[in-house]
This record gives sequence, structure tokens and C-alpha cells, in this order.
Amino acid sequence: MKVVIANIIKGYIAIGTEVVIHGWIRTRRDSKSGISFLTVYDGSCFESIQVIVNNFLNNYQNEILRLTAGCAVIVNGELIKSLGQGQEFEIKADKVHIVGWVENPDTYPISAKRHTIEYLREVAHLRPRTNLIGAVTRVRHVLAHALHHFLNENGYLWIATPLITTLDTEGAGEMFRVSTLNFENMPRNFQGQIDFSQDFFGKETFLTVSGQLNAETYACALSKIYTFGPTFRAENSNTTRHLSEFWMLELEVAFATLNDISSLAEVMLKNAFKVVLAERYDDLMFFNKYIDKAVISRLEQFIKTDFIHLNYADAIKILLKSGENFEDKLHWGDDLSSEHERYLTEKYFKAPVVVKNYPKHIKAFYMRLNEDNQTVAAMDILVPGIGEIIGGSQREERLAVLDSRLIETGLDKDKYWWYRDLRRYGTVPHAGFGLGFDRLVSYVTGIKNIRDVIPFPRTPRNANY
Amino acid sequence: MKVVIANIIKGYIAIGTEVVIHGWIRTRRDSKSGISFLTVYDGSCFESIQVIVNNFLNNYQNEILRLTAGCAVIVNGELIKSLGQGQEFEIKADKVHIVGWVENPDTYPISAKRHTIEYLREVAHLRPRTNLIGAVTRVRHVLAHALHHFLNENGYLWIATPLITTLDTEGAGEMFRVSTLNFENMPRNFQGQIDFSQDFFGKETFLTVSGQLNAETYACALSKIYTFGPTFRAENSNTTRHLSEFWMLELEVAFATLNDISSLAEVMLKNAFKVVLAERYDDLMFFNKYIDKAVISRLEQFIKTDFIHLNYADAIKILLKSGENFEDKLHWGDDLSSEHERYLTEKYFKAPVVVKNYPKHIKAFYMRLNEDNQTVAAMDILVPGIGEIIGGSQREERLAVLDSRLIETGLDKDKYWWYRDLRRYGTVPHAGFGLGFDRLVSYVTGIKNIRDVIPFPRTPRNANY
Repeated sequence: MKVVIANIIKGYIAIGTEVVIHGWIRTRRDSKSGISFLTVYDGSCFESIQVIVNNFLNNYQNEILRLTAGCAVIVNGELIKSLGQGQEFEIKADKVHIVGWVENPDTYPISAKRHTIEYLREVAHLRPRTNLIGAVTRVRHVLAHALHHFLNENGYLWIATPLITTLDTEGAGEMFRVSTLNFENMPRNFQGQIDFSQDFFGKETFLTVSGQLNAETYACALSKIYTFGPTFRAENSNTTRHLSEFWMLELEVAFATLNDISSLAEVMLKNAFKVVLAERYDDLMFFNKYIDKAVISRLEQFIKTDFIHLNYADAIKILLKSGENFEDKLHWGDDLSSEHERYLTEKYFKAPVVVKNYPKHIKAFYMRLNEDNQTVAAMDILVPGIGEIIGGSQREERLAVLDSRLIETGLDKDKYWWYRDLRRYGTVPHAGFGLGFDRLVSYVTGIKNIRDVIPFPRTPRNANY
Repeated sequence: MKVVIANIIKGYIAIGTEVVIHGWIRTRRDSKSGISFLTVYDGSCFESIQVIVNNFLNNYQNEILRLTAGCAVIVNGELIKSLGQGQEFEIKADKVHIVGWVENPDTYPISAKRHTIEYLREVAHLRPRTNLIGAVTRVRHVLAHALHHFLNENGYLWIATPLITTLDTEGAGEMFRVSTLNFENMPRNFQGQIDFSQDFFGKETFLTVSGQLNAETYACALSKIYTFGPTFRAENSNTTRHLSEFWMLELEVAFATLNDISSLAEVMLKNAFKVVLAERYDDLMFFNKYIDKAVISRLEQFIKTDFIHLNYADAIKILLKSGENFEDKLHWGDDLSSEHERYLTEKYFKAPVVVKNYPKHIKAFYMRLNEDNQTVAAMDILVPGIGEIIGGSQREERLAVLDSRLIETGLDKDKYWWYRDLRRYGTVPHAGFGLGFDRLVSYVTGIKNIRDVIPFPRTPRNANY
């Protein structure tokens, strides 16, 4: 009976069953009495299974004793209760078929010894074979699935917003250009400018920095929608928190206010953390032991804690009274820097904090202007240990106000004709947020560098693999 | 009590409940007796709900009688059993609050009359407000979620493969270039060539045509994985079946053969169709009535029918004996064209057909060479009415054979060093396939033009919205 190791570990397979497992060798240990112990993993869970190989197997001398980390094997044997410590089950092998050897075990990049996380980044094609990146991959999957599941259960429709765009959503943010023009010989028009009418889409195109504006068109028709897909920033930010290509969940709700979506974000995140604690406790235990001793307690605490809600203006007051020696001098009107965010969420409140109603001049044109004419209905959700994880706002649904804001921020109103149409035809109050998915994985696993929570990170000067 | 219309239609809300609904007007009809009937939709299901408005409401004359298609409203009222035909429930309004008017109802692009599907493409930002595109969106969502759910239940991990790449997966296929170089003034090296070392990633980069090679690295570590994300083709194909940016599900399994994955594909597709029939029968009924009378019977038939499996060589024999007057003359070694595919699946077998073991020279370098040295373990799954919906193969796991194939197909072995590493270290037989998600939606809805099943299609000379 072909089984996955996860089902053995969970106790789903009866003792005495003749099982077949497919996987790779993690370690081999030989006893003097002519028995070898293999640990084999298959990716289905954190644990490996121990395989006991007796020297009466006819490939014992020629093959078993040559097995090294990374060899691919198919094991047939009886599932037995383990006599040794540290595992409940093991397999008494009847047959070990070696499917794939490791060429030059001495130079195998993922040998059994411990490797630094920085080294593993250099072998991104092999690092999923490690305990660490295997665990990251399972946790990442469970988080993504928990979000999809939660949103589906709550009536949100997943939609695909385009990645290739002619519009810059933020009115800021560096973008990558997408083109099929001949770089060696750029076509030019009679004025000597690059002739983008000859490009693939007949105009200048870029990789999107957000699907929000597109998403709003669907929310203003079907009420509750979300996107989940890649997003791009061509910023030369070589930090542990930035990727040039990252995954974002963007959610948009019609007939909703800022408070509606901050509540929704709270419920959604807590649900995702409950699911990951329930389904991937094995992997979280590993992170808790080797990466960050607070991984599990932080998630448990998060689930129990009510989010703190406060206005930007009050946040500023708290920061000014803090007595902390911040690097940046702070005034009303300044954006909060990372150290301010960390003070609020880690020191002052010791809880996730929703900061709301920011000064309009530090926020995007589409955020709803408050009655004070100074602030907009924007929010950032800050969490201890990572800072901002969600940014959102109520959207400006009043055409006249939107138009003033477009002009104020120096954008070309005509380019936004279709976005403005939403305000001309059956406009509704609506709100939404964006969740940086890779940062969420970083928060949950305790892994500080975002390059280690996505399979093949794209960062300035790096698009390897 | 705030409710969504889907829950009323499903009978989840007790008659007599005071409900509040948020939505948009589809139609208004006034009776001579001073009662108006509004139909209101909110996107949660295909059906609208009828709202009965009596002229004693104080905004009856000034507002209710001015309501037109697309106006946004909040209705408070009592849920009652409908006396009229065509619906089971209706709402007797106590209050109708108009949230957003439609500017110039006469020129509202989505007026209540029927519009052609071609016209709707021109107003892609408003078309989700129609019955048609609303239904497409819900079906698309349910299909995506059914696939995620099925794969999660079966132990597949979703992984994110990068979209920005330095590699061309197929060794063919036109790609979009990604760059931040200054188009007006391209940097050149001392030999006069474009100096890509100054580009964002320090080298030439493109938008991926497939995540498969990256996905294999994770399958060869964690056994069962899949990707679901956008993919790009810079081909000047202006057909009803091609998008420049489309969504693809790519799945990769270790220790698997071609037969394993063709069986998996069959089970996965049948499951998705069962789910969509169970959850979105309302929307499918609409397609069945207005788009394609065979929508529902085709899905039901699909679920009941075993896939036909046959070799390419046998497919050629059948086609040569068919007596059909195909436009392309056919020989062993030719690729099957659309008319051949349709003959096999629609006329000859009247069932989904898995064609296997194609001549190697018409397939990609990574497909496993069969013992005959002439064919590779590739498959295409053809379905009646749409043709190829899935393409897959067993991957070449033998380093020496892979290397010969790389050379044969004129590719640079060194560029694939990390892909070759998978064959040097614990190589395993493995296989995978790609499912064009938009084509799947097209198949399920009966909508012939793929531009109508994705919110904002990208095609040659079109990246609007």
C-alpha cells in the first residue's frame, strides 16, 4: 500500500501494514550488528520516518551502505511500533529500491550538516529539500489556503486583475516596463520620440503595482471580491522586507466603511493563524526551536488580543510623549517610520494596532477625504515584530472630491476615466485593503529575511533560477 | 438584519424577517395603483430580489420614480412570500435609501436593455454589472476554488513560481521583456551592445511562459506541488482562444509517470465540474439558456465519461482513415491541428481524449524520451468543444538523455545548470501538466471568446483598463 509519511505520523495507517513509501534519504546510520537506520522524508510533513534495513537484504553491501543524504528511494516494508526514542513508528524494510543516487556526495550542496540560511539562498533550487524551507513551504501553502477558504466561506469572489497595465495605481512607485520593442533599434516617430504605438500593446505598458483600481470595478458590481496574485516594485530597496516581485491579497467591499474592513482584516488574520496552528504545529515547533522562540506564543497571543484602534493624530501624541529618542523628529503630518510603528505596537500597546485617518498629503488620491478636509479614511495595521502588514482605506466615492484629489496630486484625470465612471454610475461607499502575503509568511515563521519565505526571490540585481 | 440576496433565495431567511439589503437596481416597473416594483441585485447570486415600494414612502415621488438601472440602494423591509410569478420571495419596503444615482440614465453604458457581448468588451469596467459577466465571475471563482480545495485535500502544496525570469522554458515562445533601462538613451557597453548589466536585475529579463522548471525543483523535494498564477505569451495571435496574459495551473508530482498524471487530471477536472454544477447551477442555467444549450449536458456528460487514452501513432491512423477532408495533409511526425483534435474528440470518440507519446521533434526538450528513441512521454488532453485543455509530460529524469536533448534542440546546457542539478542529486521519475484556466472557464460557461471570461483581457494592441 503506497502511503505518504504524514499519514503514518498521524497514526492513520495500522501497525503491521505492508507499506510502500517514496522519498529521499535525510540520514543513514549503521550499527555494528549489521543493521542500518535510514531516515526518509517525502515533504508531506515535517517528520521523517525511520527505516530499519537488515543486512540480509541483497543490496545491503552494494547499495544500502553507500546511501547518502538526498538519494531517492522506494521502500517496501512493514509498519511497526518504534522501539527507539523520538518516533512512534518505523518501517522494517523488505526492499529498498534506489531510484536516484547523489553524484559526488562530498560536494552535494545539501549535505546532512546544518547550513546557514544565507548559504541556502545561493542554492535556491535545492533548498526546499531542507527541513527549514520544507517547513516554510508547507506553512506558506496553509496560510494561502486558509485565506482562500475563509474568503470563499464569507462570500468573496476571487478575481484576476491584470498584471500588465498602462496605469500607475499609486501615482508614485517605480514600475517595470514591459515591451517587445527591439532594444537595439528603437522605433521613433517623426518627432524623434520612442514610438510606443509600435509596441505590443500599441502603447507604453508596465507591470502593475496594485490591482486595486481594477478590483474596485468588480466590487462596485458584485459587492465582495478579492484578488490574490503577484505585484511588482522596481525600487532599489535592498532590505530584508522588500521584494521586487511579491504576492498580495487585495480585498474590496462595496457598501463598507473603514471600520468594516479593519474588523474584517482582524477576523481574517486570526482565522488564518488558528488554521496554521491547527494544521502545521509540527513546522511551527521547528521554527520555534531554531528560528524564533516566540513564534508559537506570538500567534497564540495574536488570536487572543483585540486590535487597538487609534487615530493617526493620537498616535503622534503618544509618540511625542514617549520620551523615546527617535532618529526622525516627528511632527503632525509626517509619515510614521518603522521605529515609530514598532514603538506603538511592541512597546506601548503590546498588541496589533490599527492606525487610522492619516493626513491626506501622505496618502494616495483614491482615499476618502474626511470631514476635517485634512485627513483621509486610511488605515495601516501594525503588528509586533514586523510592523505594517496591511494597508487599506475607504475609497473616495464622491466624483467631485475625487476629481479635486486627482488634480491636487498632479494626476491626469482623463487617464482615470473608467475609475471615475464608477462614481458617475451608482456610486457606493466602499473600502478595501492589501495584505503583503510574503510578509505574513515571514511573521508566522519568524524568518526575518523575506527572501527566505518565497521560492525564488526577485530583488535588485537578482533574478536567478 | 443585513442580508445578502443569495441567502434569501436559498431560503435561509425566515419569512417576516426585517431585512436590509445593499445593491443596485436592475429594473423598475410602476403599476397604476401607485406601487413600484424594483429588482435589486448584489452579486451574491444570479437572481435579483423584487422589492415592492408603496407610494406612501415619503421619497416615492421625488426619488423612487426616478430610479433607473444601476442606481445603488439600501432597502429596509419585510421579507414576504411572493404573490407574483417567477420568484419565491420579495421584500415589502419600509425604506429605500438611494446611495448613488446614475448620471444621465439615457447614456448609461449598461442600461437595462440587452447588449452584445462584443459591446460589453468595450466597457470592461462596467460589464461585471450585467447578468452575463456576473455569472462568469461567480463560475470562475468557484472553479478556481474547487481546484485549490481538491489539490489541498490531496496533499498538493501551492507554491509561487517567479514571473520575472532570465530563462525561456519552452526553448520557443515569444516573450515580453521586463526592463527599467532608459528607452530614450540605452546604455551600451564598449562593444556597442545594449548593456544589460545596468538593467534592474543586472541581466536580460522576461515575463515567464511557464513556471514548470521552477516547479520541478519543489516537486523533487516535496513530492506534490502546484502553481496557480499568470503566464505570458508575446505572440501576435488575435484569436478567440489566446490571451497575452492568462492564468495557468501547473502541477508537478515526484515518483509519477505519465499515466499517473493523466488519471489525476481526469479526477481533478471531474471534481471541479461536480462542484460547479452543485454550487452555481443558477449561473449555468443562464448560460444554458442564452449562450450554449449544451452547457449543462456537456458537464454532466463529461463527469460520466471515461477518458479515452491513445497513442499519437494511433491517433494518426484514425485520422488518416477518417475520410475527412482536412485542410492540412497529415503524416506521422506532424503536430495535430485544431481540426484533427476536434475530429478525434467530437466526432470519432465523442469523449475527452488523452493523446500520448508524441514524436520528440515536435515537443519540448524536457519531456521524457521513450524507449523507441522517437517519441516522448507527452500528453495532450482534448475535450469536445474546445480542443486542448491540458498539456503535460513525464519529465526526462536521466541526466545524459536530458543533455542530449538540450544539445539536439540547440539550447545552452549551462543556462540550465540548476535544472540539470535535479538529475544529479537524487533524481526521480516525475511528471506534471499545465491547465489553461481561462480556457477551462470558457469550456464550462460555453463562452467562445476567451476575452469574455477574464475581467480585463490583454491581447495584441489591447491593454485597456
